[in-house]
Amino acid sequence: MEGTVTFINVLDVDPERQQELIALLKEGTEEVIRHRPGFVSLTLYASADGKRVVNVAEWRSAEDVAATREDPAAQEYAKRTARVATAAASLCSVVGRWG
Amino acid sequence: MEGTVTFINVLDVDPERQQELIALLKEGTEEVIRHRPGFVSLTLYASADGKRVVNVAEWRSAEDVAATREDPAAQEYAKRTARVATAAASLCSVVGRWG
Repeated sequence: MEGTVTFINVLDVDPERQQELIALLKEGTEEVIRHRPGFVSLTLYASADGKRVVNVAEWRSAEDVAATREDPAAQEYAKRTARVATAAASLCSVVGRWG
Repeated sequence: MEGTVTFINVLDVDPERQQELIALLKEGTEEVIRHRPGFVSLTLYASADGKRVVNVAEWRSAEDVAATREDPAAQEYAKRTARVATAAASLCSVVGRWG
């Protein structure tokens, strides 16, 4: 979608806990994230080597991302995620698209 | 697309060189990557803080990704990228999609 922003969270995880992390991120998306104002789409990727999960979430605006990060229910999921994985999040915009 | 794989490359970069990195990745995609067998789609994201670029490339199969990583023209672009940024790449599959 034109004019949206993308919040990309790269999560490094012990391969033994990758499935637990995926289940937690799915639950957080189902219960909280997809209901938030400005939510557009979310794709969850799991690396084949088990060491990483990448969360690519598209939002209407940077303000919607900021409001979600302040939301207590979203923060609770972020805390639970931090117990399982090391997260490196960035607010991004699309600068090129092919295919 | 069902059954594809996604090659995600997270590139950490000095903010002063983010634009140079984006130009290089665009050139590599235009000149080499999008013409490779099994290429499906590619999206390039730039972080607002200037410190990161994320390359999300969808391919028909893991074999197509492996063949591209062996391709001399692709390797040349990977070498040029390594001079500008620190790359952490993972072969991934989609485990969830909403929206």
